[in-house]
Amino acid sequence: MKNSFGTQVSVTLFGESHGEAIGAVLDGLSPGVAVDREKIAFALDLRRPVGALGTARHEPDEVSILSGVYEGKTTGTPLCLVIANRDTKSRAYEKTRYLARPGHADYTAYMKYHGFEDFRGGGHFSGRLTAPLVALGAIARAALETRGIVLGSHLLRCGGIAERPFADDPTADIAAVNQKAFAVLEEEKGEAMKAAIAAAASDGDSVGGVLETAIVGLPAGLGEPWFDSMESLLSHGIFSIPGVKGIEFGAGFDLVDAMGSAFNDPFVMAEGRVATLTNHNGGINGGITNGMPVVFRTAVKPTPSIYKEQKTVNFVTRENASLTLSGRHDPAILHRARIVVDSVAALLLCDLLEGRYGTDYFGEGGA
Amino acid sequence: MKNSFGTQVSVTLFGESHGEAIGAVLDGLSPGVAVDREKIAFALDLRRPVGALGTARHEPDEVSILSGVYEGKTTGTPLCLVIANRDTKSRAYEKTRYLARPGHADYTAYMKYHGFEDFRGGGHFSGRLTAPLVALGAIARAALETRGIVLGSHLLRCGGIAERPFADDPTADIAAVNQKAFAVLEEEKGEAMKAAIAAAASDGDSVGGVLETAIVGLPAGLGEPWFDSMESLLSHGIFSIPGVKGIEFGAGFDLVDAMGSAFNDPFVMAEGRVATLTNHNGGINGGITNGMPVVFRTAVKPTPSIYKEQKTVNFVTRENASLTLSGRHDPAILHRARIVVDSVAALLLCDLLEGRYGTDYFGEGGA
Amino acid sequence: MKNSFGTQVSVTLFGESHGEAIGAVLDGLSPGVAVDREKIAFALDLRRPVGALGTARHEPDEVSILSGVYEGKTTGTPLCLVIANRDTKSRAYEKTRYLARPGHADYTAYMKYHGFEDFRGGGHFSGRLTAPLVALGAIARAALETRGIVLGSHLLRCGGIAERPFADDPTADIAAVNQKAFAVLEEEKGEAMKAAIAAAASDGDSVGGVLETAIVGLPAGLGEPWFDSMESLLSHGIFSIPGVKGIEFGAGFDLVDAMGSAFNDPFVMAEGRVATLTNHNGGINGGITNGMPVVFRTAVKPTPSIYKEQKTVNFVTRENASLTLSGRHDPAILHRARIVVDSVAALLLCDLLEGRYGTDYFGEGGA
Amino acid sequence: MKNSFGTQVSVTLFGESHGEAIGAVLDGLSPGVAVDREKIAFALDLRRPVGALGTARHEPDEVSILSGVYEGKTTGTPLCLVIANRDTKSRAYEKTRYLARPGHADYTAYMKYHGFEDFRGGGHFSGRLTAPLVALGAIARAALETRGIVLGSHLLRCGGIAERPFADDPTADIAAVNQKAFAVLEEEKGEAMKAAIAAAASDGDSVGGVLETAIVGLPAGLGEPWFDSMESLLSHGIFSIPGVKGIEFGAGFDLVDAMGSAFNDPFVMAEGRVATLTNHNGGINGGITNGMPVVFRTAVKPTPSIYKEQKTVNFVTRENASLTLSGRHDPAILHRARIVVDSVAALLLCDLLEGRYGTDYFGEGGA
Repeated sequence: MKNSFGTQVSVTLFGESHGEAIGAVLDGLSPGVAVDREKIAFALDLRRPVGALGTARHEPDEVSILSGVYEGKTTGTPLCLVIANRDTKSRAYEKTRYLARPGHADYTAYMKYHGFEDFRGGGHFSGRLTAPLVALGAIARAALETRGIVLGSHLLRCGGIAERPFADDPTADIAAVNQKAFAVLEEEKGEAMKAAIAAAASDGDSVGGVLETAIVGLPAGLGEPWFDSMESLLSHGIFSIPGVKGIEFGAGFDLVDAMGSAFNDPFVMAEGRVATLTNHNGGINGGITNGMPVVFRTAVKPTPSIYKEQKTVNFVTRENASLTLSGRHDPAILHRARIVVDSVAALLLCDLLEGRYGTDYFGEGGA
Repeated sequence: MKNSFGTQVSVTLFGESHGEAIGAVLDGLSPGVAVDREKIAFALDLRRPVGALGTARHEPDEVSILSGVYEGKTTGTPLCLVIANRDTKSRAYEKTRYLARPGHADYTAYMKYHGFEDFRGGGHFSGRLTAPLVALGAIARAALETRGIVLGSHLLRCGGIAERPFADDPTADIAAVNQKAFAVLEEEKGEAMKAAIAAAASDGDSVGGVLETAIVGLPAGLGEPWFDSMESLLSHGIFSIPGVKGIEFGAGFDLVDAMGSAFNDPFVMAEGRVATLTNHNGGINGGITNGMPVVFRTAVKPTPSIYKEQKTVNFVTRENASLTLSGRHDPAILHRARIVVDSVAALLLCDLLEGRYGTDYFGEGGA
Repeated sequence: MKNSFGTQVSVTLFGESHGEAIGAVLDGLSPGVAVDREKIAFALDLRRPVGALGTARHEPDEVSILSGVYEGKTTGTPLCLVIANRDTKSRAYEKTRYLARPGHADYTAYMKYHGFEDFRGGGHFSGRLTAPLVALGAIARAALETRGIVLGSHLLRCGGIAERPFADDPTADIAAVNQKAFAVLEEEKGEAMKAAIAAAASDGDSVGGVLETAIVGLPAGLGEPWFDSMESLLSHGIFSIPGVKGIEFGAGFDLVDAMGSAFNDPFVMAEGRVATLTNHNGGINGGITNGMPVVFRTAVKPTPSIYKEQKTVNFVTRENASLTLSGRHDPAILHRARIVVDSVAALLLCDLLEGRYGTDYFGEGGA
Repeated sequence: MKNSFGTQVSVTLFGESHGEAIGAVLDGLSPGVAVDREKIAFALDLRRPVGALGTARHEPDEVSILSGVYEGKTTGTPLCLVIANRDTKSRAYEKTRYLARPGHADYTAYMKYHGFEDFRGGGHFSGRLTAPLVALGAIARAALETRGIVLGSHLLRCGGIAERPFADDPTADIAAVNQKAFAVLEEEKGEAMKAAIAAAASDGDSVGGVLETAIVGLPAGLGEPWFDSMESLLSHGIFSIPGVKGIEFGAGFDLVDAMGSAFNDPFVMAEGRVATLTNHNGGINGGITNGMPVVFRTAVKPTPSIYKEQKTVNFVTRENASLTLSGRHDPAILHRARIVVDSVAALLLCDLLEGRYGTDYFGEGGA
């Protein structure tokens, strides 16, 4: 299945940027999980472009839940969630239809779908499709929290500005960033990042960066030895987010020059439970969680939509061309992508936990 | 399915390091693909520890093909390949059974399998299980080559030593490294890497590094927009390889500070076909191949098995302990892992190509 | 994935009888397949209860296509189709909420979903959810027809009345029944069936029967030897239709007493192509199509909703009870189920054909 | 995945009749399940052709377990089981290589695999591949029994002779037939069946029949509402067994002429638990188990290998031909197929139960 993710708990994504609506189907989440409209709205707000940092497209993202919820709780049957497209200016895209926007999927979509794709506004490839993921993610996160599992992401690096990583015990940091529209641990660094974004915007350019994500409270023993290692599954999900070009777990690329004696995480008993003194492996040994925080970092490229003139081709006439984008585009998506990363991770964790502990793991029907 | 990977072309992995045998089942590869025993043996030789660099365990890796090949060609039905375990010194592991080796899966396996796991030599988690993957990968690569698709990896960084990346057109570089047991583009850098490995070994320590992989000849239009993006699927596969802690496509983490105008890859007509002037996106736009070389880099942590005394716990008695490993262990696996990365990637590409073009895409029965 | 079916071409079903809407997502159908609203409406008309035969619930089944269609053709990305629920009288169900209707899923749903299920009107189990399947099936059938593949079903037996089976070459019979709201080959038998249904209705009772389905034009070589045999996949799909209790291929149960020499279908050259003299195997040998018509029969139980008083239990208080249904119920669903059977089969065939011949097999982009 | 079945607990089948070996990989069964060699041997004995009833091919079916079992119990990692092929007379098949045996898969395999298939003795399509399924089934059944779930099958009809069906409570009947090599409830009927088989054999012909299977002890609430209904999944598995042409649940085809009031199974409290007065629905409502015995019947066609001269074609030269089989062939497989049906059902039930209750449901590690 091409636009689906997950086994016990699965998501199927549909919609195009300028079509009738976008949405997603969530299947397999335990019956009896509370579906809190305010949490969904809060999460969608975090994804929405804000102020000078975002695009000019403003939609209230009104979510319709068509199925799968009864009296405020999941039924256990598929939950379909739809967000109508309202503010769509399609004509802006038509004149440049066959000019491949550099860094975008116009050309690759054409090679795959032979021109039948709905090209308007990026169509099915639009970042707008992350909205239903975020809405479902809000439900998944709430389910995880009933089991003591929390997660969050912050902008470790944006527009060339870096802030400190999560603390070794990231619980307090997670709580802090989860309340923020611009998720940073150090406010002054956040202001510098916003300034870098604004500077790029005023130059018709864009910036990227790195998100750091931490998950706390996972039981040890989650994941599989080989193809369904925790890293395999998380990276599979995270790379589905537009603009992601890299992922690393624990120390990742930073410690490739280290010796094994420095990289290995010695085990130690801590308050009666097995822990590690360091966490270079990011909470995962042999593909399986060890009970320490799962930590990973995601590289997000600069937004490909910029206002500078760019070289390109007309992929139908097969001629060189130049292209200057109009329309509305973000100078950065990193601060919006953080909630998407959280959402995809949360959905995957629900999948793995139900796979391990059964379909009643979440919800009031659970043991 | 927990130890399987792929849809149209799939691999199922089985075996433990000190059990009867290890092996894998390859299902779905087109009928009529040549199975060349010499190519399999060559690939396995590249995976085998060599000389001063490797472990003391030497097995000829004799591959038995139990099914799926008739008169030297794939039948189209499942190919089961088995490698018997012969040189197994199990007793070395028994006395430290419940002492978690830092960086290894002993503790996580125990939490998942409750002590029923075959712990000897890492059991099912052993890097030895990459041997059947490599054998199958050799078949997959040969199939890809009949379609003009080649791939290869080199040690971009090892033990703190870096060499040059693949050239923009990596075809010649791929051909060069694919012949080498120690896959480097710059021989003097390779000697320095070997020296670093030897130095670590003499200190009872280990090193890691970064592999760079390039794939040339893929058609544009391969991959899916969201969850089955080319990056999602490749990373899913690559993270199943023991020791992998990071992956990045194209410029990846290196260019997170760049502006969009520098990161975007302008399109240009080149000899009648669509190309890009740079390849910061690693041959993938919107999750789908654009016809440029697919390039990614894999971070491999230092081998966790070292000879220095390490702190740990006994996870049954829940007491602190210390551990000094004996037995045979590699001071580096990077030079052996490169062929595993190639193999997993090759198997995945066969899957995607058959998914797109049908089950007869490879083999003499193909159109 | 629990409410999904198919691999290359997949369907995900959602909705409850008295919720906001019902619908389905179709993913993976080739780009460029014509989506004909009239064909969809025609198919939905065949599924709709008609005249004296059907229930009192009349909804126009207005289909909204939210995504995946652009300028009248499939885009290749997920097609989400929604049918709003309008005429819902939920209160009728509430007073009998915990009384298990015999033959229905009330009790099993309660045991699975712990009371969180939307029980109104059968909720997610309602036969109403076959409407989106039928709408998608209309698209799939049109795609098949562009490849020369047609299929159809008729009421071989209903309310105790049997009519003749499909002719050995069912092409003309298929064309005939596909135009009929009450799909019979012999009109007078059809009138007798209708009379039997009416008699059951006037007695507050219901009837069942047998559907016969034939598929013509499939290439030889479709299906897999073992778990994904053509019979396995078709039966998997057909048993998802409410009320189905049996399926048989070719001669099926009828010839279990025959000798091998009578059952075997001798091969013969016919007009230059390989054929069989008889078709007791229903066009399938070893799980794989042989180019002859695929023929199967589906046993549909009498509609469980009847107006007679029935014994039952209150599954919450765990007490015996009796139940007399009010509300609106069909005295037979067989004549409506035929288009559902066709639709599920058509969707599966698209899946298998794209799996074998690639994702461009249908549509104008196809080779 | 083409030769695999199951999600949480999965089976992958490999091998050809005259190749090196046949076997299967079982993945996902809980760690700590006892693997009893005697139970495996007993099950394989039931599958083996016996006395005058069977083929002349006699192999001890020595099972090698290559992985996944340690100290007599499942490890939780993949269990690969191999049976070597020893007594293979391949030359018997070569001269008739391109003559399609009626009722067999020779022609369909050729159309699918283009002549690269290992045709000898039916190759991958051979009924011999059911041996590893039976061996794995013996492990699965033992796991089920630790949870109070038992199942069994008997020859309801064979060679035109019928015996009584299972009793309403089939527990004692299941225990009785599970001890028998020729699984009948009425011995004299069994003798008549054997006589019918012998008569067919002496005439160079073959017979088929119907198996009835019952499963007792399943919890209510197992299965999914639509595509993964219990009937869908069981039929999917059962149709993978060679020769199966029909399946029906509960009353199935027999009661298609009944009225709803006769077919519906009234609920009643029985010894404090919910039960039904009749079981026409075969223990399944709305695709989900209701706690009553799951009962289904499987139609098995007469063995296609007969010694009479048959019409056929040479599918390479495309000419009419005639064929008289030599070699060794069963005049009936029904009495051997019963253990295969049991095995496939048992494996599927383990899959569903682990899916619902988690991966530790079986085995000593379970809660």
